Amino acid sequence: MTKTNYFEQSPALPAPLEKSVFRTVRFNEIDPMGIMWHGHYASFIEDARVALGNSLGIGYQDFYDHGVAIPVRQLHVDYLSPLYYGKTYEIKARLFYSEAARLNCDFTILDESGRVMTRAYSVQLLIDKEQRLLLEWPEFTRPFFRAWKEGTVKIK
Amino acid sequence: MTKTNYFEQSPALPAPLEKSVFRTVRFNEIDPMGIMWHGHYASFIEDARVALGNSLGIGYQDFYDHGVAIPVRQLHVDYLSPLYYGKTYEIKARLFYSEAARLNCDFTILDESGRVMTRAYSVQLLIDKEQRLLLEWPEFTRPFFRAWKEGTVKIK
Amino acid sequence: MTKTNYFEQSPALPAPLEKSVFRTVRFNEIDPMGIMWHGHYASFIEDARVALGNSLGIGYQDFYDHGVAIPVRQLHVDYLSPLYYGKTYEIKARLFYSEAARLNCDFTILDESGRVMTRAYSVQLLIDKEQRLLLEWPEFTRPFFRAWKEGTVKIK
Amino acid sequence: MTKTNYFEQSPALPAPLEKSVFRTVRFNEIDPMGIMWHGHYASFIEDARVALGNSLGIGYQDFYDHGVAIPVRQLHVDYLSPLYYGKTYEIKARLFYSEAARLNCDFTILDESGRVMTRAYSVQLLIDKEQRLLLEWPEFTRPFFRAWKEGTVKIK
Repeated sequence: MTKTNYFEQSPALPAPLEKSVFRTVRFNEIDPMGIMWHGHYASFIEDARVALGNSLGIGYQDFYDHGVAIPVRQLHVDYLSPLYYGKTYEIKARLFYSEAARLNCDFTILDESGRVMTRAYSVQLLIDKEQRLLLEWPEFTRPFFRAWKEGTVKIK
Repeated sequence: MTKTNYFEQSPALPAPLEKSVFRTVRFNEIDPMGIMWHGHYASFIEDARVALGNSLGIGYQDFYDHGVAIPVRQLHVDYLSPLYYGKTYEIKARLFYSEAARLNCDFTILDESGRVMTRAYSVQLLIDKEQRLLLEWPEFTRPFFRAWKEGTVKIK
Repeated sequence: MTKTNYFEQSPALPAPLEKSVFRTVRFNEIDPMGIMWHGHYASFIEDARVALGNSLGIGYQDFYDHGVAIPVRQLHVDYLSPLYYGKTYEIKARLFYSEAARLNCDFTILDESGRVMTRAYSVQLLIDKEQRLLLEWPEFTRPFFRAWKEGTVKIK
Repeated sequence: MTKTNYFEQSPALPAPLEKSVFRTVRFNEIDPMGIMWHGHYASFIEDARVALGNSLGIGYQDFYDHGVAIPVRQLHVDYLSPLYYGKTYEIKARLFYSEAARLNCDFTILDESGRVMTRAYSVQLLIDKEQRLLLEWPEFTRPFFRAWKEGTVKIK
């Protein structure tokens, strides 16, 4: 039922870049079934996506400073096992290389033993201040993509 | 990029059952980009799903009263156009007929002119109090499914 | 323990203006204790405050259109009885007359039988685009205050 | 306008116990005014209260394991300066000694330079499984209170 590879890509392309954050489930994130409400995963996922973007110099603020917004165009979550109150989970985000101007990320949420609880992906588009879709990556991201292709990206 | 039919089904099966709710975007649901934050859609969608379930007598509470929980196993959202503060949108939920014990719903969010802003779907599984997956629909839902096949379901 | 009059005022001043909205507690607003999580009341209260402001022509958007923001400076909630899933409650907001440029509102949440479940109040200040505190009501609010004093305000 | 001491107490009583947590403002916690929405402070405050309770062995789960719930009876927030996206703040919780069975906490949110951004307090009551108010501290908390009086409490 759940694909393990949401984004298929040629092995010739640079490998995905990844970063993990850790987050503990809050009291108010638990629903009447005693598990984390499914709607809170978007925030868990965003925590990892934001951390990855910031560490690469292509975060929300970086785009915004260049007049570009990066709204989420698609979000997909496969809830494999529930998350519980007070437990801490790893959220791992991976950014996939794309020539087209879009941010393709996938996500894995793992418990403390490394078991996969959730898989997810998101797609973000780039728009300018007039709400027009950008078809090419903005100038300021060029050095980043060059480094990615050369295998010299540093994840802070 | 966006499929219009997430669930394909034989024309021989009973047609989906549907219900709409209306909801106005709140001040605190707007993100720094000036549009509704993508994570709030899960709640919009749930409003319609809950209303549909309740109107059919197979809501959260109905299942719960029979010892069954219906956790969300999969959620997918295609964000086509942004939602804005203070605007009221229609959220239309449709439940698809399934012999297997799972709730397959799709969702359409429309603006006041009837334009489609969002498409989405969710899949829910049924589990008992020992967290075991139910493979068959619980006894209490039988009359509902019979009525659905006979075309006599009443949506309150 | 709970005061019933948060804002004391001279009987010579115009009486408070009020408006009610109704809201049903959502599945995801229930906490592990089986009652609405205390942090969600701010949104319930805001629903009534926004409705009252809009009905009087002095809502967020009205102020914003005149370059003024109205941030909440103080919020106080007395939780008297818990709110439950699926129940619908009335949230009544009252705006108190004030010569000083601040919005003093109190709130009462009632169940279907009219029993008081919650009392609360909020204080909002007015600031301009340079984040400076406004000491006087903006020009555009003058007709409203004149009508209030004359007893001719219409609540839409 | 803002009191700095919400709970007055005799100097003869044991001093408050305190603990801080740190939290970074998320993208979706920012409202259309560009500052953290006032309703999210309840969660910031709860983070510090939960951490303090857990560190003292009198957290939600500790009470729950003894058949006691500790609902919030009163919440008060004084918003002194706004919180901004991506900034990290210290949230300091203090528990005040009380012979009566109630948890009186105050809170201070500070920015990275130590400036006070927010002051708040909460009062929690103790109820048993039949929703009856507890007038005395449960047995399991006795050693904790004895240690507090003796000045030997360890905050983990």
